[in-house]
Amino acid sequence: MKYLIALFIAAFSSMTFAQSDNSKIEKEITKVMTDQAEAWNRGDIDGFMRGYWNSDKLLFVSGANVTRGWQPTLDRYKKSYDTRAKMGTLMFSDLEVTVLSPDAAVVLGSWSLARDGDNPHGKFTLTFRRFKDGWRIIIDHTS
Amino acid sequence: MKYLIALFIAAFSSMTFAQSDNSKIEKEITKVMTDQAEAWNRGDIDGFMRGYWNSDKLLFVSGANVTRGWQPTLDRYKKSYDTRAKMGTLMFSDLEVTVLSPDAAVVLGSWSLARDGDNPHGKFTLTFRRFKDGWRIIIDHTS
Repeated sequence: MKYLIALFIAAFSSMTFAQSDNSKIEKEITKVMTDQAEAWNRGDIDGFMRGYWNSDKLLFVSGANVTRGWQPTLDRYKKSYDTRAKMGTLMFSDLEVTVLSPDAAVVLGSWSLARDGDNPHGKFTLTFRRFKDGWRIIIDHTS
Repeated sequence: MKYLIALFIAAFSSMTFAQSDNSKIEKEITKVMTDQAEAWNRGDIDGFMRGYWNSDKLLFVSGANVTRGWQPTLDRYKKSYDTRAKMGTLMFSDLEVTVLSPDAAVVLGSWSLARDGDNPHGKFTLTFRRFKDGWRIIIDHTS
């Protein structure tokens, strides 16, 4: 009987998870990305990088290039955006969060940089995982 | 006591899941992709499409373009590859499967088309979900 109750609780939890926790997850992940954009827009690349998994296994795919690991990804950003003017103003938009489990989600969205000379922009898909300290990007594919 | 046994079984299952089932998932997903490449290479785009989630919610991101839904994705492939020569020979390589849950995974990999005139190639990240009839791509980001 206790086993049945445990099963019932497990089944009920998974049902209620689907209904209420997806929007909570969406809010938590959107917050990570808002924090990233805010850090970028005050010229703080280290702060921006807090949205990424601090691991050698972080994957950053940009077009045909794959950068592996948190430090090489940071180095790449610092090299590509070595002045405040190059960083411009970052905006994320059109975010669509697909929740895959209580601890994993993929976000499709658009990015754009408003700069004096140009306005580069494109799409990204970000794979997020939930860690003890919150949601972090484990795979970034930007094009 | 029965509750404790159930808990123990659940904990043990999740441990053994991590160790043995990830490689099973990798094999299952790799099989879906092998089947896709084989279908493509016999000129069978409908067969190739069996690897994708047959849903209006399928997302196909190619560079800055997003195609939504299974049918528009099929139409796009048939329009872009309307002769056997254009289809060429498809190869998937460098597959790296990140298992996110028993029912979700992301695959980073390389694609290339061997054709008479050229050899287009690039990277992809594919989000897979497990459905009743097997693993299917729900988000394809190709660049």
